[in-house]
Amino acid sequence: MTATRVAPSEITTASTIDGYAAHGPKSRLEPYRFESRALRPSEVEIQVSHCGICHSDLHLLDNEWGLTAFPFVPGHEVIGVVSRTGSAVTQLHVGQRVGVGFLAGADFTCDECAAGRDNLCDNWEPTCIGRPGGFATSMIADARLAFPIPDAIASEHAAPLMCAGVTVFAPLLRHANASTRLGVIGIGGLGHLALQFGRAFGCHVTAFTTSPEKAAEARELGAHDVVDVSDPKAIATRSNSCDLLLCTATSDMPWNDYVGVLRKNGKLCLLGIPAHDVTVSPIPLIFFQRSIVTSGIGSRREMQQMLDFAALHGIAPQVEVFPMREANTAIDRLRMNAVRYRAVLAND
Amino acid sequence: MTATRVAPSEITTASTIDGYAAHGPKSRLEPYRFESRALRPSEVEIQVSHCGICHSDLHLLDNEWGLTAFPFVPGHEVIGVVSRTGSAVTQLHVGQRVGVGFLAGADFTCDECAAGRDNLCDNWEPTCIGRPGGFATSMIADARLAFPIPDAIASEHAAPLMCAGVTVFAPLLRHANASTRLGVIGIGGLGHLALQFGRAFGCHVTAFTTSPEKAAEARELGAHDVVDVSDPKAIATRSNSCDLLLCTATSDMPWNDYVGVLRKNGKLCLLGIPAHDVTVSPIPLIFFQRSIVTSGIGSRREMQQMLDFAALHGIAPQVEVFPMREANTAIDRLRMNAVRYRAVLAND
Repeated sequence: MTATRVAPSEITTASTIDGYAAHGPKSRLEPYRFESRALRPSEVEIQVSHCGICHSDLHLLDNEWGLTAFPFVPGHEVIGVVSRTGSAVTQLHVGQRVGVGFLAGADFTCDECAAGRDNLCDNWEPTCIGRPGGFATSMIADARLAFPIPDAIASEHAAPLMCAGVTVFAPLLRHANASTRLGVIGIGGLGHLALQFGRAFGCHVTAFTTSPEKAAEARELGAHDVVDVSDPKAIATRSNSCDLLLCTATSDMPWNDYVGVLRKNGKLCLLGIPAHDVTVSPIPLIFFQRSIVTSGIGSRREMQQMLDFAALHGIAPQVEVFPMREANTAIDRLRMNAVRYRAVLAND
Repeated sequence: MTATRVAPSEITTASTIDGYAAHGPKSRLEPYRFESRALRPSEVEIQVSHCGICHSDLHLLDNEWGLTAFPFVPGHEVIGVVSRTGSAVTQLHVGQRVGVGFLAGADFTCDECAAGRDNLCDNWEPTCIGRPGGFATSMIADARLAFPIPDAIASEHAAPLMCAGVTVFAPLLRHANASTRLGVIGIGGLGHLALQFGRAFGCHVTAFTTSPEKAAEARELGAHDVVDVSDPKAIATRSNSCDLLLCTATSDMPWNDYVGVLRKNGKLCLLGIPAHDVTVSPIPLIFFQRSIVTSGIGSRREMQQMLDFAALHGIAPQVEVFPMREANTAIDRLRMNAVRYRAVLAND
C-alpha cells in the first residue's frame, strides 16, 4: 500500500478524463478535462455511469467547510464499472459494477479502521475533496471502498444509496430495532430513504416535514404518521413519542422542541449539518436521560449491509435523472429544494 | 401495591419524626417536627443514621427547578436501619442497614421500569420532592429502593454512594470498558468518586479541574493525568484524547472545547445540570461522530452493582461529617465549594 511497494511494472498508464468542475466557490460547473493518474496497487478506476448529487456537494461547492480544492469536481455517490485494477486487487475485476460513496480511500490501519469504523479513518480520503469526484467519465477509488452492487438494484437507484442511503441506514443499525419508535425530520434525499429503511426495520415511523404536500408520499414511503411542522408548534403534538429521531435536514431546527419529542432515554441523531450552533436546554435532556448522537456516513461493513438490505427489501430512492452535462440544472433544482427526492447524473 | 390491597390491619401506626426543613426558597433549615404516615405494604421506614448532601439538594432548596414543595426536608443520600416494614416486605427486616438514593418510590410497572430503567419511572417518587427526605430521624421508602449496604462500607461512606456514586457509576457501566480513555470534568462530590470508579474499571483517567490545589489528591484518587483548566486554553492540550467525558460540574462549560477533547466516536456525558443552555458547533460533533449523552442517577440493578463494586474495590468518598443539627453549616460550605469532597450529616 505504501509508495515503496509500487513497482514500475505495477503502475498502469494514465488516461484522459472528462468531467465537470467549479473553479471557485459557488461558481457554475464547466467542462473540465484532466489526466487520470497511476493506480496504487489497491485501487481501481471506475468508468462512471451514474453519480448522485448530495447536499454535501453543495456545501463543498460553496466551500462552506473550508475544505474544497479548486478546480472542484463534485460527486460522491458514484456507480460505474471497473475499468482498471491495481496490481493488488483480487476481489474486483474489470467490467464489474461497483459503487463508491463519500470515501474513496482510507489507511485501513489506524485505530478507527481497526475498530471497524473506517468511516472515521485518521487518514481518510474523501471522494471529492482534494481529488476529483464522480461528475466525470472516470474516477479512482480504493478497491476496498468500491462495493459490488446487487443485481436487484438499478444503477440510478444505487447511486444515492452510496451516501444518502448509508448515512441513514448506519444509525438505524446502531440505535434502532424493530420496536423502536422512529422519527425522521426532513423528507428529502436522506429522509425519504430513512422512511423506507425504518419501515423495513419494523419500526413505527413518523415523518416530520415542513412540506405538507409531501404527506401522502411520505406515507407511501413508509411513514405511519406524518406531522406538518411548517408551524413549529405542531412538533409538540408528538411529545415523548420517539425513541430515535434522525434529523436529516441541513437547516437550523427548533432543537428543544425535538428533544421534547424524544421519549425517555431517547436519541436525537444529527445527520445533516446545520449552518449554526446547536443549542439545547439541559434539564429536558438530562432529567429524561436523552442524548444527542451523530453519525457520519457508514463503515465498509455497514455499506455492504445497507446494499444487501436495500436489495432484499426493494428499497430504492425516488430519483430525477439528468444527463451529466446538465449538472448545473440539477444543482439549481437542489438549491431550490425542488428535487423529488434525489438528483442523479447519468453519463451518455 | 394499590390502595385497595391495603387492609386496615396492615397499616402500622404513625409516629413523630424530627427533621430539618426550609420554609421557602433559599431559606435556612429549621427544626421541623412532623407525623410519620402509614406504610404502604411495600414500604419500609428507616431510622436515619447518615444523610449526604448533594448539589441537587441545593437546586431544590433554591427551587431552581420549580419542583420543590415547602416545608422542604432535603436529603436523598440516606443510610439507616429498617425500623418498620410494610406487610408485603419480605426481603428486608427490622434492624437491617439500608441506603436510599434519589428515588424512594416507583411504580415498577411502567415501560421504563419494565425495561430495567426504573430510574426513569413514569411515576417516580423522588426521595425529597413532595415528601420529606433524609434530613430527619426517620424516612419512608419503597423496600425495593432501600438497598442493603455491604458490611465493608462504613455508613458515612455509603451515604454519598447512594446518589453521587451511582450517578457516576451508571454511565461508566453503560459507556466505558477497561480500554476507555476517561475524562472527568470537575473534581467534587461526583468527580472524586468518578476518578476512583474509572480507575477501578481499568480506564486511563484524566481529571479536568479548575482547582489546581486538587491535583495531587486527584492523582491519589485515581487520575493518571490532571489538567488545570483554570485557564480554559489548557483544555485544548488534551484534544482528541478521551473516549468518554463525564461532566460532573454544575456550572456552564466551554462545551466546544470539551467536544474537542473527545476522540472520534467519543461521548460527552452530562451529569451535573448547568444553569444555562448547552451550545455546541455542529461540525466538530458530526464530522467525528461524537455524541452528547446524559445519565440520570441509576437503576435498581445499577445501584446494587455499584454498591457491590465499591465494596469489592474499596471505593469510598472522602467526607466531612457534620451533626445533623449543623446542616446549615454544611450547606454553607457546599455553597462555597469548600467541601472535600462530600458533606454527610449524622444523627446523634
